Amino acid sequence: MNFSSKLLENAVNEFAKLPGVGQRTALRLVLHLLNQDKTEVSQFTEALNRLKEEIRFCQSCYNISDVAVCEICASQKRDHSIICVVEDTRDVMAIENTAQYQGGYHVLGGLISPMDGIGPSDLNIEPLLERLKAGEVKEVILALSATMEGDTTIFFLYKKLKDLPVQISTIARGIAFGGELEYVDEITLGRSIATRIPYENSLLK
Amino acid sequence: MNFSSKLLENAVNEFAKLPGVGQRTALRLVLHLLNQDKTEVSQFTEALNRLKEEIRFCQSCYNISDVAVCEICASQKRDHSIICVVEDTRDVMAIENTAQYQGGYHVLGGLISPMDGIGPSDLNIEPLLERLKAGEVKEVILALSATMEGDTTIFFLYKKLKDLPVQISTIARGIAFGGELEYVDEITLGRSIATRIPYENSLLK
Repeated sequence: MNFSSKLLENAVNEFAKLPGVGQRTALRLVLHLLNQDKTEVSQFTEALNRLKEEIRFCQSCYNISDVAVCEICASQKRDHSIICVVEDTRDVMAIENTAQYQGGYHVLGGLISPMDGIGPSDLNIEPLLERLKAGEVKEVILALSATMEGDTTIFFLYKKLKDLPVQISTIARGIAFGGELEYVDEITLGRSIATRIPYENSLLK
Repeated sequence: MNFSSKLLENAVNEFAKLPGVGQRTALRLVLHLLNQDKTEVSQFTEALNRLKEEIRFCQSCYNISDVAVCEICASQKRDHSIICVVEDTRDVMAIENTAQYQGGYHVLGGLISPMDGIGPSDLNIEPLLERLKAGEVKEVILALSATMEGDTTIFFLYKKLKDLPVQISTIARGIAFGGELEYVDEITLGRSIATRIPYENSLLK
């Protein structure tokens, strides 16, 4: 694109670095901000700068938090003998939205991905082991995405955890609710037969 | 959405104000920025702040420009007796990309839109009239979008300009190149028959 202004070009290029934002979208967003009041724009940039400067992570579960120990970890109402291991804060929000889970969390901060240069040491795995060695946790639920990176991370974590006196489980995989059998992919369908569960345990009653 | 951090929530809300960005996308973008180095984030916010602080508009055509008179207006190679009136800088870029036009521009900075509270006085219409009254311009091409706002603006401009000694034209409307007749909407097709042009003038030879 040929920009009439270097300042405009810089701003567009910065926006275009964001995932899923191309040059055209970036230009649209930048021109939108340009039409806003100066205070609106400085509010926008201020919020980002403050987030980056002041962001803190819960010292127990490593979820994003404004305080040293997050609300969930500090709650008396929750069952801290179960830990749900997730990739990032979005997964915590997704699981909290189900209102089905009352235990604690542990946020890895990513998944093992050799392609992106992310190894086990880049994730919050050591602090997880320390939490488990403290002995209060009875069950660890590995709630990671059903992708290659998720499976690699599950495999790695299982090897690390299997000798500790905790129950290790993974969230159920199978056909989604509302899913029609004829449209389900072969791997999912095949595995959902292989890992079938007794009707009494299926919660379908 | 329930955020575990007020800082995170603020940043997401600021992003979600951008056009076409919902809360989920905003969260994805913010978490992406959070994973970047501090310098990356400050580069991003710095580019936006500088753009907003230092942005200038060409004092002749009102296109975004880093200098007082933009490259196009200052060029000796261009025909300054023709002015193409457009909505914003994106349209200038689009027309420049065609490499079919060698005249000057005039950027309105928007279209008349009573619904959005944008009236003629919010646009760079007075400066256009002054440019035309200077007497050097022979033709004005109204190159505005074929929308209600575009048509309203064209109608308003035509009334303002019709007594000046300039030729007023609008860009051609009709079926697009590559367009198959059976899929063209009725209004476009009907008008393209009503505004048919002699084969000799059609550039199809």
